[in-house]
Amino acid sequence: MLNIDRLFESVAAKGHVCVGLDTAAEYIPPAERRKAASDAEAVLAFNRAIIDSTFNAAACYKVQIACYEEMGLAGLSAYSQTLKYIREKGGLVIADIKRGDIADTALRYAKAHFAGDFEADFVTLSPYMGMDTIEPWLEYAESKGKGAFVLMRTSNRGMHDFEYLPIKVIDNLSGTVPSGGIRLYHAVGNRLAHLAAAHSGKYDYGAFGAVVGCTEREEAAEIRSAYPNLFFLIPGYGAQGGAAEVAALLLRKGNGGVVNASRSILRAWSAEISSSGADEGTVTGAFAAEAARRAAVTMRDAIQAAANYV
Amino acid sequence: MLNIDRLFESVAAKGHVCVGLDTAAEYIPPAERRKAASDAEAVLAFNRAIIDSTFNAAACYKVQIACYEEMGLAGLSAYSQTLKYIREKGGLVIADIKRGDIADTALRYAKAHFAGDFEADFVTLSPYMGMDTIEPWLEYAESKGKGAFVLMRTSNRGMHDFEYLPIKVIDNLSGTVPSGGIRLYHAVGNRLAHLAAAHSGKYDYGAFGAVVGCTEREEAAEIRSAYPNLFFLIPGYGAQGGAAEVAALLLRKGNGGVVNASRSILRAWSAEISSSGADEGTVTGAFAAEAARRAAVTMRDAIQAAANYV
Repeated sequence: MLNIDRLFESVAAKGHVCVGLDTAAEYIPPAERRKAASDAEAVLAFNRAIIDSTFNAAACYKVQIACYEEMGLAGLSAYSQTLKYIREKGGLVIADIKRGDIADTALRYAKAHFAGDFEADFVTLSPYMGMDTIEPWLEYAESKGKGAFVLMRTSNRGMHDFEYLPIKVIDNLSGTVPSGGIRLYHAVGNRLAHLAAAHSGKYDYGAFGAVVGCTEREEAAEIRSAYPNLFFLIPGYGAQGGAAEVAALLLRKGNGGVVNASRSILRAWSAEISSSGADEGTVTGAFAAEAARRAAVTMRDAIQAAANYV
Repeated sequence: MLNIDRLFESVAAKGHVCVGLDTAAEYIPPAERRKAASDAEAVLAFNRAIIDSTFNAAACYKVQIACYEEMGLAGLSAYSQTLKYIREKGGLVIADIKRGDIADTALRYAKAHFAGDFEADFVTLSPYMGMDTIEPWLEYAESKGKGAFVLMRTSNRGMHDFEYLPIKVIDNLSGTVPSGGIRLYHAVGNRLAHLAAAHSGKYDYGAFGAVVGCTEREEAAEIRSAYPNLFFLIPGYGAQGGAAEVAALLLRKGNGGVVNASRSILRAWSAEISSSGADEGTVTGAFAAEAARRAAVTMRDAIQAAANYV
């Protein structure tokens, strides 16, 4: 069974929230952080508490490897153990690694992140160098059901620099020409739609989907209709200004996408105590985990309500 | 002093060869590999021997992190120690990591690869998501002289998929319009030229350069003249079909570029024994290191001769 099918079923059962474990040590309540022998151990313990508390409200988890690389070898050990913890509970985890390199190297990266210490269910990939940096990963879709989300139209300010450049050739395998013309991100999307047609799961989504941010309302419906068979990993919710209504436009029949939130869930404890006026020194790990659960549930319900309205 | 200035001086003193330590365990002579307690230890020992033997013939080293991630945590420990070994000898090392992520995350990656366990002198970066994924790294150019090479026009088959797409807008800060029109890689190059003008070293090269493959002869001179202030990291030599003559066209006044070779140097021992008919089981680490030195010297001299001819 493809992981993209498992993800579809997880969304149907638990909603659209992808909990982003971009766990910087400074996101942990100070008292909890001090209790641990190192920041890497504090992060791992905090992750476990967040995973346990949000498990029934999260379709999947996304782990941003930069937050762990920043702590060196000890951080990567915490990264490895975080992935194992999620997978041993039966959860699904996306390794947010944004790798992209030529064929031989892509195969080595695929082995690194689809087996061994860093085994994940999905990865994120960057398409700049071309499809021969994406296709080698498909070997693991066939052998182990693994999946990927390829950067297409992100939600950061810099998306306008290259992703939005209008291109001259019409290389639009999906047959629709968006009203704004073809942009680089459409060229990427068209290639991904082509791959999806060749490697598709039982719910008609390709084994490999796309990263599409939820910050641009006007384009969301256009992108969704142009790429019906791409499952979307949707960043930009909350902290980056995206809203449930925009995320809902990127879904299809209430499925086909997971919406990532990191800081608003990991640091929900901080938002709760600043509104209550409590001292942050008193915040326990258990309180932070419960606050994360409340934030995930609120987000899940907001997206569900918006999706019902669409 | 910027690392790009140190690299310029290293090229002037030692030639243009960048030794690529894409050290897969299967590149090591079998007897050497068996002697080590693990593949990760075999790779580290082999790297040290190669670094020692090629040190006077190499401008710098490039370490492909995928080969180490593939071996999990033990591999990343070997990666860390390889970087330390080069830097403690006074050599320059490029971490070939091709990272590219939004602002906060870019800063975490920069801390990961410009300090601590994985500290390198240069990194490679991928531009797809835009300049806000590149600019945060400049903080380390200012504080520690660090450098980067941003993917521009690579040497793999897939470069035609996106890097070559013709774009409609003329966003050409360098003022020249290439005869083939503006392609995506020019849009990237133009942004990098703009950055280079603002962050330049004493030899007029920007702190951040570009990755430009040496496989397309017709474009090499055009790219060099369009971007005089970008130092180039040049892959695609040897195994990928690039030749000294093409690499030389990417240089400027005999400097301004380093040419990477990995397999042809790491596995020079194998090429030497297959032409002599010797048994590969008899190959020692010392022989492999000397074969690597001979391959690096031959490559250095071929590029130097071609550069003199240009």
